[in-house]
Amino acid sequence: MTDYRRLRVALLGAGAVGSQVASLLRKHGDELADRAGAHLELIGIAVRDPDAPRDADLPRELLTTAPEPLIVGADIVIELMGGIEPARTYLLQAINSGADVVTANKALLATHGPEIFEAADQVGAQVYYEAAAAGAIPIIRPLRDSLAGDRVQRIMGIVNGTTNYILDRMDSEGAEFADVLADAQRLGYAEADPTADVEGYDAAQKAAILASLAFHTSVPLEAVHREGITGIDKAMMDAARHAGYVIKLLAVCERLPGRGDRPESISVRVYPALVRRDHPLASVHGANNAVFVQAEAAGNLMFYGAGAGGVQTASAVLGDVVSAARRHLAGGVGVGESNRANLPILPIANVTTRYQITLEVDDQPGVLATVAGILSEGDVSIATVEQTVRSEPVPGNGSPASEPASDSVARLVIGTHKALEQNLSETVGRLAASGVVERVVSVLRVEGD
Amino acid sequence: MTDYRRLRVALLGAGAVGSQVASLLRKHGDELADRAGAHLELIGIAVRDPDAPRDADLPRELLTTAPEPLIVGADIVIELMGGIEPARTYLLQAINSGADVVTANKALLATHGPEIFEAADQVGAQVYYEAAAAGAIPIIRPLRDSLAGDRVQRIMGIVNGTTNYILDRMDSEGAEFADVLADAQRLGYAEADPTADVEGYDAAQKAAILASLAFHTSVPLEAVHREGITGIDKAMMDAARHAGYVIKLLAVCERLPGRGDRPESISVRVYPALVRRDHPLASVHGANNAVFVQAEAAGNLMFYGAGAGGVQTASAVLGDVVSAARRHLAGGVGVGESNRANLPILPIANVTTRYQITLEVDDQPGVLATVAGILSEGDVSIATVEQTVRSEPVPGNGSPASEPASDSVARLVIGTHKALEQNLSETVGRLAASGVVERVVSVLRVEGD
Repeated sequence: MTDYRRLRVALLGAGAVGSQVASLLRKHGDELADRAGAHLELIGIAVRDPDAPRDADLPRELLTTAPEPLIVGADIVIELMGGIEPARTYLLQAINSGADVVTANKALLATHGPEIFEAADQVGAQVYYEAAAAGAIPIIRPLRDSLAGDRVQRIMGIVNGTTNYILDRMDSEGAEFADVLADAQRLGYAEADPTADVEGYDAAQKAAILASLAFHTSVPLEAVHREGITGIDKAMMDAARHAGYVIKLLAVCERLPGRGDRPESISVRVYPALVRRDHPLASVHGANNAVFVQAEAAGNLMFYGAGAGGVQTASAVLGDVVSAARRHLAGGVGVGESNRANLPILPIANVTTRYQITLEVDDQPGVLATVAGILSEGDVSIATVEQTVRSEPVPGNGSPASEPASDSVARLVIGTHKALEQNLSETVGRLAASGVVERVVSVLRVEGD
Repeated sequence: MTDYRRLRVALLGAGAVGSQVASLLRKHGDELADRAGAHLELIGIAVRDPDAPRDADLPRELLTTAPEPLIVGADIVIELMGGIEPARTYLLQAINSGADVVTANKALLATHGPEIFEAADQVGAQVYYEAAAAGAIPIIRPLRDSLAGDRVQRIMGIVNGTTNYILDRMDSEGAEFADVLADAQRLGYAEADPTADVEGYDAAQKAAILASLAFHTSVPLEAVHREGITGIDKAMMDAARHAGYVIKLLAVCERLPGRGDRPESISVRVYPALVRRDHPLASVHGANNAVFVQAEAAGNLMFYGAGAGGVQTASAVLGDVVSAARRHLAGGVGVGESNRANLPILPIANVTTRYQITLEVDDQPGVLATVAGILSEGDVSIATVEQTVRSEPVPGNGSPASEPASDSVARLVIGTHKALEQNLSETVGRLAASGVVERVVSVLRVEGD
């Protein structure tokens, strides 16, 4: 065994990811030492309850309920507690006591990122967070470093495994949201309280982190427009499939060129969107994640892999630990974040996308003309219209229905050209109140064409 | 404009990539300065002929035929000349005169990598080479840094755009190799002398670079087994399609577990292989590249994008330049390569893969038994056999032939279980000499199952 220098590593948190990190650090210790050029000595693991059951077998003597002594004695602090406090306090304490830090805490970075990066800058500490954006997929270094000489135009990411799992099963099995969610909870793909995933909060945190890196602009979580997938039902999935689309929860980070008085700006948003079936993101199945990046010079890039999971995420954390160790030995300070572009962030009302609007209307002459007139007045330009008389399966009869229903209701599926969100939502309001529209079935954005 | 420090950047070479690098450096100078935290001042461009036509409009006063004065005056030297000499001499000169270096020179790194990394280590210089392995796809940082805490088990890469373009068109159009190659040359996808691409030399250089990073082992180019695609014809493509495969030129880098007396080792090889159509690599079309990575903890990852092209590759080079500048400002020395694992590299004879063997045999009773016997003696285990009587289109008749040919020749397509290359090639030799085999139509490896 080579006589390497020792670097003291403190671990805060021993949940699904933390216990795997500790286990791999010990299992592959010699190999990691060869790569880092230093022995990575795990000096302790701060936990709330040393007697709680763990995913991996950790030596009892490393567990402690007192993080502070660990932090002040460490060269590298790994924060895997999650949540804002006390994670924030401990991370700042680690930075200020001279440690380099590794974290997978997306909630903390999306809300207190600037404070943490500023504190690290002050003392020259390094902050690594590869695991915070898309689990095991290496996306932080590509955005921060590999694409630092390019101009990222657009990111479309499937960055939440739970929602992709649910939507993928709804799509492939024709199942309802509630049934798949219940099954996902049973199988461990979704939490008992699924809000953070299905309402898009988790994806919004990751979108804030990705956009900050891609556009060299600090993007606060509040600036991310967020919609979840709880409103997506089987009928919408079926209609999307029929039209050659699949519904995916997307994190969209977009650079918008300056025009007239408006300066160059960015938009960051999370919502379920229609994606064409031949788009690379459409073939991301199960709980996998993928980040599709369009850059001015590099063109289209895609990064694909596992978006969650204890051992997968531990891979990203340990890559950061080895990087931190190498840099610790090589000297120099952390390079800090590059947020000097400071692009303005557009509110969702000012964003333009394509839409697909599905309406149930009275099956009367002149209705289409009325609808088209309202859209035109609202500055929403129609690209395609499909009109079908509504037909439903006859109860108790398993064969597909072929008879038109008797209540004279037609379904209009309207694809728009790019329209301003504000115009679109006002126009949909006017359609709903027009008297000819019985029901606005769905309004979905179309991305990636 | 912020009052940044000036970093002097010298560019060696102004071909397809170099001229784009120079052009983007000047076009986005202020933005790159904000990201790097320093003005990247292009102090000169060394070229062979200042009057040669260029892809981008470069100021005449920056062009020089004398690289040495540029090199000694630079903080960062970008080497885009290609080839071994004088690129090697200039790169070493840059390192020894205190510059950090960026290169896209795969030939140089695959043959003189250790010398260059050693020289950089001696003086603490940084060496960046993101553009050397898969064009614009960020793969160097993911392998070197993001996966540094994991154990890469296997890489399968489509790392040569020209051959993927040719094979993809052969597959989708049913065209012959020579015709597509000629067309590719006309369209600029292949060089006038296509040897480096179609014989797999370019892919082998990239495989050496990827394997060195993934396995923390210096892999010399000579240790990479290399086969090209010139032997692939329409009939092989059609047969592959019929069997649910597509033929791709793959760079395979594999970790082989120790067993008995044999230590853990690696294998690095480039050859055309059968890939199942539902594998993510099968949907990499045109001149695109993709690198599929399997790691112990992270699971399956894939990196996809443009593998070549001047402006795409320039993106990777400029990302390196910004990284080098940031690190230059932050201080500290280059972290160096991590080749301490020093795994032995197995020769191809000791590698096991699955094979598909296509034979033309006498259509006589007992022939299959003879063939099966020879395979069994050679320790090659049969997984599947398909026998078809050979049928060919009747000359002058455009309709598909349905009559069996009259010469009593049957075609056997044999899929094997994993077999040792040495056993396989000896067995194929014995089959050819057995008297019952008229012709060995093809022997292809199957990867990615």
